[in-house]
Amino acid sequence: MLSGMHPHDGPLTRLRRSHEQAVLEQLRKYGPLSRAELGTRSGLSRTTLYDIVAGLVTSGAVVAGTPYVEARKRGRPVEKLSLNPAAGEAVGIDFARRAVHVAAVNLAHEVVGSASEGHAGDLSWPERVDIAVRLLDSLTTGAPGESGAGGSGRAQAVHLGALRAIGVGVVGPTSDPGSESAHAQGIDGLPDLLRKRFGVPVLLDNNTRLAALAEAVWGAAADSGDVLYLRLSHGVGGGLVVGGALHRGRHGLSGEFGHITVDPAGERCECGKTGCLETLASLDAVLRRYRAAGGRADSPARFLDAATAADPPALEVLARVGGEVGEVLAAVCHAVGPGVIVVGGELAQAGNALLEPVEQALRQHLMPLARLHVDVRRATLGEAGSALGGIALVLHETPLLTHYPQPVSEENA
Amino acid sequence: MLSGMHPHDGPLTRLRRSHEQAVLEQLRKYGPLSRAELGTRSGLSRTTLYDIVAGLVTSGAVVAGTPYVEARKRGRPVEKLSLNPAAGEAVGIDFARRAVHVAAVNLAHEVVGSASEGHAGDLSWPERVDIAVRLLDSLTTGAPGESGAGGSGRAQAVHLGALRAIGVGVVGPTSDPGSESAHAQGIDGLPDLLRKRFGVPVLLDNNTRLAALAEAVWGAAADSGDVLYLRLSHGVGGGLVVGGALHRGRHGLSGEFGHITVDPAGERCECGKTGCLETLASLDAVLRRYRAAGGRADSPARFLDAATAADPPALEVLARVGGEVGEVLAAVCHAVGPGVIVVGGELAQAGNALLEPVEQALRQHLMPLARLHVDVRRATLGEAGSALGGIALVLHETPLLTHYPQPVSEENA
Repeated sequence: MLSGMHPHDGPLTRLRRSHEQAVLEQLRKYGPLSRAELGTRSGLSRTTLYDIVAGLVTSGAVVAGTPYVEARKRGRPVEKLSLNPAAGEAVGIDFARRAVHVAAVNLAHEVVGSASEGHAGDLSWPERVDIAVRLLDSLTTGAPGESGAGGSGRAQAVHLGALRAIGVGVVGPTSDPGSESAHAQGIDGLPDLLRKRFGVPVLLDNNTRLAALAEAVWGAAADSGDVLYLRLSHGVGGGLVVGGALHRGRHGLSGEFGHITVDPAGERCECGKTGCLETLASLDAVLRRYRAAGGRADSPARFLDAATAADPPALEVLARVGGEVGEVLAAVCHAVGPGVIVVGGELAQAGNALLEPVEQALRQHLMPLARLHVDVRRATLGEAGSALGGIALVLHETPLLTHYPQPVSEENA
Repeated sequence: MLSGMHPHDGPLTRLRRSHEQAVLEQLRKYGPLSRAELGTRSGLSRTTLYDIVAGLVTSGAVVAGTPYVEARKRGRPVEKLSLNPAAGEAVGIDFARRAVHVAAVNLAHEVVGSASEGHAGDLSWPERVDIAVRLLDSLTTGAPGESGAGGSGRAQAVHLGALRAIGVGVVGPTSDPGSESAHAQGIDGLPDLLRKRFGVPVLLDNNTRLAALAEAVWGAAADSGDVLYLRLSHGVGGGLVVGGALHRGRHGLSGEFGHITVDPAGERCECGKTGCLETLASLDAVLRRYRAAGGRADSPARFLDAATAADPPALEVLARVGGEVGEVLAAVCHAVGPGVIVVGGELAQAGNALLEPVEQALRQHLMPLARLHVDVRRATLGEAGSALGGIALVLHETPLLTHYPQPVSEENA
């Protein structure tokens, strides 16, 4: 299933792939086309084009056929080429702290399935990669994943012959993110393991940032290319999507909304400074504040139950947290001007008890001109988000892609 | 001088221009190339390539010649094509409140000159455009600009035959920025006037944002593609450059650092809310605070003189302003992770009396991991900044460019 893929790309392969992508892009955009039409649209020479098309047909990415309605009365019918909808183009894997999540898309950029499996926190990388391969096999054969897998893969087989790369999410700050040389603490050996197993480039990024990208592509903000994603979980972080592409910052340090100062005289944060949003709005901080306000809960889940039951101390804490979160979001909005704010993580399950105070603080702290333009929404992708973000990374963000020829606009031409 | 340019582009012209840009890009990257080499590298068909090259030679953008050392012993020598270094590629114009600034670059992306002329605040758009044309003529002929022009144009003539667009900075929020359909309040008719006068596409953006782009391309942050630019002037604003490209935000509302809340209980701001950074750090606000602290100055210039003379109340006010500015910059840094912070505008002339408190506040409010990565610098481009940013807009940012085929990376190929 995962065999027969091309080896790690060199410059010549890369040039060929850029031509392949140009052809695939035309087919994606205009539907079935003849070789002659593809030649005109892609600008490639006849020889190059025929060679590239032959390769794509062999790999299963493209199928050739003669549409009945377009068959000529005389002479040889013109063969049309189209995308093979069953060809898998990209795979995403999220190596979370205690679970592996995978997802795959076909060449039409439709998500063909996702699957998850929990594991002990100290599992080795080879064992976690085994889980990922098994989960992906379950998607590509349509069989459910094994042992305790929360597989939500639809029973639709997908070939991986057209796979171009895998996008991988990991925990923690990632240097050189989104690239093949990306690195994060504690992942030694992982990229090599994956490259050997899948035979394609491996692109790595922080998994919270990948969740941001996924919400912008397939989730709560799929209609907007400019998204501010905030995750309120055991930590507080997020990501920015700008013009449909993930914004990473100069040293991979962006989306650190949890470390914006809210109260300079506040509590010491794990990061080393004081009064960070994370010291006020993480699940643990919220639970602590709830108990200080007289609430009784021994876990974040119990706190969320209390909030759902409209327990007054829970609502009071959420109102304060929402106000602080909203003030921080307003500052970021003035800086980057997102179209949509997406709030995810477990605390977002509190729903309007949290989001209404957030919106109120945004109205207070945003300049009037900006108030019209910001929309606050709950994240929709749940635990598959980061794996889906890995796919989006491959499709939208790879360093390979920046070398691809952009298709020339030919509307009305 | 400004005649003979191509009319407003249609889709077919645009396709042709994308081919032209592909050829120019190869010449820019690899130096002189033969037609055969250009064919291989650009992927264009022989017929298309010869046609495109002929047009570029006619317009003066490209020159053809036979390098002596490469002349063959027998047969016809191979003609090499190269960029004409004297061809002007882009022009930038900044229509500030009371002055017009212009600048031009050649095909080698070297700034060949800039010029400025002040005018009354109520001058009509046709009159302001006349000033711009006159200033540009002074650059293209090497003659100084007329009547009171602060022309700093070097005496280097530049043909505008290869001009591909002009980038224009205007005051105030700009909708659909960076495009030909961009609009800002009070500029009715300006884009049409410019298109008629120059015969090329006109790309418009907010002039503070253009100054940010210019600092990232030619100014204080020319070594970094990720820049946070803050301008402390009569207003407080700025811009973000991300990966070498201007970040604009969903509705053209980004870089509004002046409207981030610093003190919710503070003064009412012109924008309609209270406690914005602008109410504390604009030139007027600083002057007011200085006088409240016992200082005596009746203009921002006098205040800056006092600061330069190390007048204690002036230094005290700058220390407070620097602390507030630094706290806001730290919040933005956590969100976007810039490599360099550039501080411009008149208040930056106070130098270290302002910048040291800014850096101190940054150290306090940045998470330790981020502190290593931020560098604070004074802007270097002065009043020509926004006109230079207009050029950068054309070179790096035009909507035309997003349709251009990106050259395929062929290192080592």
